Amino acid sequence: MSSDSDKIAAEIGKRMDRASKPIPIGVSNRHLHLTKEDFKTLFGQEAEPTVYRQLRQPGFFACNEAVNIETEKGAFKNVRMIGPYRTRTQIEVSMGDAVKLGLKPPVRASGSLDNTPGIKITGPKGTVTVQGGVILSKRHIHFTPADARNFGIEDKQIVRVRCGEKGDRGVVFEQVLCRVSDKFALELHLDVEEANAAMVGNSDFGYIV
Amino acid sequence: MSSDSDKIAAEIGKRMDRASKPIPIGVSNRHLHLTKEDFKTLFGQEAEPTVYRQLRQPGFFACNEAVNIETEKGAFKNVRMIGPYRTRTQIEVSMGDAVKLGLKPPVRASGSLDNTPGIKITGPKGTVTVQGGVILSKRHIHFTPADARNFGIEDKQIVRVRCGEKGDRGVVFEQVLCRVSDKFALELHLDVEEANAAMVGNSDFGYIV
Repeated sequence: MSSDSDKIAAEIGKRMDRASKPIPIGVSNRHLHLTKEDFKTLFGQEAEPTVYRQLRQPGFFACNEAVNIETEKGAFKNVRMIGPYRTRTQIEVSMGDAVKLGLKPPVRASGSLDNTPGIKITGPKGTVTVQGGVILSKRHIHFTPADARNFGIEDKQIVRVRCGEKGDRGVVFEQVLCRVSDKFALELHLDVEEANAAMVGNSDFGYIV
Repeated sequence: MSSDSDKIAAEIGKRMDRASKPIPIGVSNRHLHLTKEDFKTLFGQEAEPTVYRQLRQPGFFACNEAVNIETEKGAFKNVRMIGPYRTRTQIEVSMGDAVKLGLKPPVRASGSLDNTPGIKITGPKGTVTVQGGVILSKRHIHFTPADARNFGIEDKQIVRVRCGEKGDRGVVFEQVLCRVSDKFALELHLDVEEANAAMVGNSDFGYIV
């Protein structure tokens, strides 16, 4: 065989192998991350975030603490905080939520908050109006470095992921961002509308195709 | 060339041609179709459905008339009727809606309502509790017979459709049902969560891939 056909065969083999490896799905409902300063304004100077449940990503946890978010057009109550603190407050909503709030947030990777709309946040002890921070989450996969080697993936690579193929609403999500860090655990993050479009939940798996 | 490679080349040519033809997208929010009898119970014996706006499918129209739908777990107000009358009342909700209602409706083609959950419907003049009829809509494409020939598609064929490829959330929807009738107009029907997962709306297009 020529060197070219060897390379093609190797690439196809790599892709077939990758497509057989399940990636656990984590579905995000609307939630927010808070700076320590914003948390203290909302919940009081003596308060600290308390753990409702640990998330699959090491060190991350859903908090018992929840707030209301509000624009001139609409509002949502009991939006849960995800801990720990962040260096910038970030509010992740679905596109359906954004319509009800009258906002047009962009699709962004976590932490990429320039030129995003703001919102009024109310907690039991106070109110914060952030000038930006509302985003639609860019769907993404968390890999450890060992996972990344196993999948043949590099940080920031964009892949296609098949979900729900055993159900009634199979979907291939394109433009899925890969993130690699030794602080991560293997997980595909979708928002609730993306998950519902494929009829998948937290006990299902995606496959890079 | 062999006959086999001729056939393969012809099939690839057909698929490439098909993938270049835009199909207008129609996004459905929650809505319902009513029998004449249920309509009269809800809106009064003298009432008739009135046109809010014509839909792309010939003869179909969103009505001014809206109802409330309700279970023991949840409710939605102002759910719009789509006319004309049907032979069986049918309520189409999103998966997110179904969670709020505490229902687990199956994914079904329109009119396929056996073994589906019921719901309480309230209009200005009365209430109907249907014993079935709540579904998640199976995503589908309406073709005229001329469209079907143009796309090389047959009635009931299942296809894959790419949407949102120019945006930040490209998706390939699998298991899309093709329906062919001289009463139809060319249109891909998605529910609002499917549309949001691909960030597409009523002015966008899908492509069979």
